[in-house]
Amino acid sequence: MLVEFSVAPMGKGESISKDVARIIDIIDKSGLPYQTHAMGTLIEGSWDECFAVIKKCHDALRKTNARVYTRIAIDDRKGKKNAMQRKLLSVEQKLGRPFQK
Amino acid sequence: MLVEFSVAPMGKGESISKDVARIIDIIDKSGLPYQTHAMGTLIEGSWDECFAVIKKCHDALRKTNARVYTRIAIDDRKGKKNAMQRKLLSVEQKLGRPFQK
Amino acid sequence: MLVEFSVAPMGKGESISKDVARIIDIIDKSGLPYQTHAMGTLIEGSWDECFAVIKKCHDALRKTNARVYTRIAIDDRKGKKNAMQRKLLSVEQKLGRPFQK
Amino acid sequence: MLVEFSVAPMGKGESISKDVARIIDIIDKSGLPYQTHAMGTLIEGSWDECFAVIKKCHDALRKTNARVYTRIAIDDRKGKKNAMQRKLLSVEQKLGRPFQK
Repeated sequence: MLVEFSVAPMGKGESISKDVARIIDIIDKSGLPYQTHAMGTLIEGSWDECFAVIKKCHDALRKTNARVYTRIAIDDRKGKKNAMQRKLLSVEQKLGRPFQK
Repeated sequence: MLVEFSVAPMGKGESISKDVARIIDIIDKSGLPYQTHAMGTLIEGSWDECFAVIKKCHDALRKTNARVYTRIAIDDRKGKKNAMQRKLLSVEQKLGRPFQK
Repeated sequence: MLVEFSVAPMGKGESISKDVARIIDIIDKSGLPYQTHAMGTLIEGSWDECFAVIKKCHDALRKTNARVYTRIAIDDRKGKKNAMQRKLLSVEQKLGRPFQK
Repeated sequence: MLVEFSVAPMGKGESISKDVARIIDIIDKSGLPYQTHAMGTLIEGSWDECFAVIKKCHDALRKTNARVYTRIAIDDRKGKKNAMQRKLLSVEQKLGRPFQK
């Protein structure tokens, strides 16, 4: 399944890039395929694989922050692997041209 | 921690109330405190308690639907229990009056 | 259409109930039907009615906070009014009993 | 401000890539900087610029679908332009290396 998520500390100050860097590091070490954009990260794997990573990220920030806000969206489609790339290709095909990624 | 989530089948037709009823039933049997509104459900518990319930709901709909979309938001604040009620009371106190729930 | 939203300052400190109270006050004065829970507020109206209120809430917090994070989810179904109550009734009917609200 | 959003028809069948292609086309013609990933699109502009585009996308799908579900997340930070790139660079700097985008 395809999962997009973001983990953010609340009340730490405006800039949270250090905390985001810690999260990216955890995701990177998980070995799951991932893709980071300016509002979150996409990962792909089974429920247990994905949520092991997300829990690790959430816990890492909660250890150093009194309040953490985590958002998760799951798109789970039967028999569809490599959704991270496949979905974009399918849209580009219908569109008849590539778009900004 | 306080968790809000919704699980929705995609491509099954416009009306999804039967599937939502199945989810509410699973949540109800979990024993966790919960609150359902027209766009999702709030539950309160530990990470493992909450995600055991959410996984069960997601899996139940995926068994009967080729595509399922699940949204989760977590508000995790140190040392704060009963957030479902406490947060609203705290806001009403600042507001100086009750509001629609 | 039915809209759920939340507006939160980032970096102001852990407690944001004062800011949430200001938002509830703006929503209340809008005259739109609304319902507040511990993770956000549901409102019902046309696109323009709903987004006039959400913009006012977002702007109010941005005036006093350097960074604001706003989440919005829209469920727009043709010919369906009073979705805030109707959706819950429809689920309870399928469930055969009322649930916690 | 930086906005991430997705617009999805409900009940149309599993595959929604044709509808997503129509949305990308609208976004592309808006002239706003954007970036599409497998779960949504990021755009950057003023509130009015961004919501004019999102409303156009939502309305386009509602014209041909009885039910549409739209998700929006706004990250609005004072005096920060080009957040789409700047945020990622800031994280990579803290991380000491580039990551998958």
